[in-house]
Amino acid sequence: MSNFADRLLGAVEAKSSHVVVGLDPDFTLLPGPVRDLFPGALADPFELTECYRVFLTDVLDAVADIAVAVKPQLAYFEALGSPGYGLYEELVSEAQYRGLLVIADAKRGDIGSTADAYARAHLDVAGADAVTVNPWFGTDGVEPFLERARAHGKGIFVLVKTSNPSSSEIQDLALVDGRRVSGRVAELVERWGEDCIGDLGYASVGAVVGATHPEELASLRVAHPETPFLVPGYGAQGAGADHLRGAFDKAGTGAVVNSSRAVLYAYRERGGDWRKAARAEADDMRRALWAVARGVTG
Amino acid sequence: MSNFADRLLGAVEAKSSHVVVGLDPDFTLLPGPVRDLFPGALADPFELTECYRVFLTDVLDAVADIAVAVKPQLAYFEALGSPGYGLYEELVSEAQYRGLLVIADAKRGDIGSTADAYARAHLDVAGADAVTVNPWFGTDGVEPFLERARAHGKGIFVLVKTSNPSSSEIQDLALVDGRRVSGRVAELVERWGEDCIGDLGYASVGAVVGATHPEELASLRVAHPETPFLVPGYGAQGAGADHLRGAFDKAGTGAVVNSSRAVLYAYRERGGDWRKAARAEADDMRRALWAVARGVTG
Repeated sequence: MSNFADRLLGAVEAKSSHVVVGLDPDFTLLPGPVRDLFPGALADPFELTECYRVFLTDVLDAVADIAVAVKPQLAYFEALGSPGYGLYEELVSEAQYRGLLVIADAKRGDIGSTADAYARAHLDVAGADAVTVNPWFGTDGVEPFLERARAHGKGIFVLVKTSNPSSSEIQDLALVDGRRVSGRVAELVERWGEDCIGDLGYASVGAVVGATHPEELASLRVAHPETPFLVPGYGAQGAGADHLRGAFDKAGTGAVVNSSRAVLYAYRERGGDWRKAARAEADDMRRALWAVARGVTG
Repeated sequence: MSNFADRLLGAVEAKSSHVVVGLDPDFTLLPGPVRDLFPGALADPFELTECYRVFLTDVLDAVADIAVAVKPQLAYFEALGSPGYGLYEELVSEAQYRGLLVIADAKRGDIGSTADAYARAHLDVAGADAVTVNPWFGTDGVEPFLERARAHGKGIFVLVKTSNPSSSEIQDLALVDGRRVSGRVAELVERWGEDCIGDLGYASVGAVVGATHPEELASLRVAHPETPFLVPGYGAQGAGADHLRGAFDKAGTGAVVNSSRAVLYAYRERGGDWRKAARAEADDMRRALWAVARGVTG
């Protein structure tokens, strides 16, 4: 299987899109017509899982030719217990069948032998194309993921600087050498990616950097030209496309941007058919990002 | 439900034991008599799940009156896919039915709204007594877990200093104020636990500190007298009971110690019936730790 970064950034070119759609199912936000089909969903995890299957499969259909990838958020599937975990696994296949890459947003991290089981669970068994990884354990906790990036065309995105307000408490701590903790992690990420750089010049080991930190995005872009970015938090806390200019390289690539609720539940703002609203929202996001990254409207 | 730290340290007194048994199922290490029951296990995740159910239920029976808690390692259950996740949920109930507390070793961490889904998944839906949490996101990523510690008798153990060799890469980074990153996290852990201190003087927010770092265990014990420790890595890399003296307070409590493979697969060293071997190994560990913590043999 070809290099993950090549597949991801190849899809960016093929679809003129930097859009990743996050799959964060939340019953209370679902469109009425979907909720009405499953009146007992809140009392029965199996019915709730069926409800999410119907909703999310329609989401995949709605965005398949607009988004480059989807990002199932494991927490919302685990909260349904075993049936929810099974739905996550099914959605990986359903998304890939529709030509979408899948970034499993699992944020796993552990010591080496256990990290290997996590890598197996998400990249081999569930079969995602990439997974998000927490850097706290250092190199030996990341190695099982790297092995699959080097040998099996898989990718990882390491949490470098997260979008939430208290990310500063640990990630921004000032080190004696003048850097911050997140800067040190970004260096590790670059090193981890050295052996899996694709033909397009980017590594299969990327960094998660929140859209809420535009200056950090820009400085990390310059400092680590081979590290692709996964940028969450789009649309939240005022982080629109204009703030993300610095995430992209001079060719207008090197980053993909995630939006979850703004796309999934777009009908709440836009009205009308919820599938069309999700599709329109994803396409508006695509155009806005393309314009910022390429200086032209797509 | 009563305070988690009171339940945990109450169990230490009631059982004269600091032992936690980690549930890390690995087919290649299973006793022959168990493997022989499931000849197709490696080709069928459902049969492998059944195999682990039989093995781990017998483990629970073998150690129920010796260990204070069991620690299912989520990675090994996720690696089986949906049936494995279901087995994890069942084992939580089976362990509690046998009088064991359950610490879900999930090492989850995310932004607030997603962290809430993880807390719901493991503490509410699966129903574990406590869960391990990654501190990388800071306070807002921990808050949903704290809410359940304060209001529902649940506990969390935050990864302060892990047992693996490359834990130093991030956790030991030197800060401008003279501390290390792990020291700063230990302070946050103490603060997070302030509102859920039990009658025995310990908080329901504990710290994971690897047995491979005896000096750090001792200095953190002195610096944070209200923080209970979960100590993994026992028996690994030469970290025996003697090295753990500093983990305990003057009363010989305040810490529990995990062993996974050395107990589960004790038959490989000890021979004989594998259940008796696991039980004997757990009891030897119990006695060794009790002697170190209390200065007497239990």
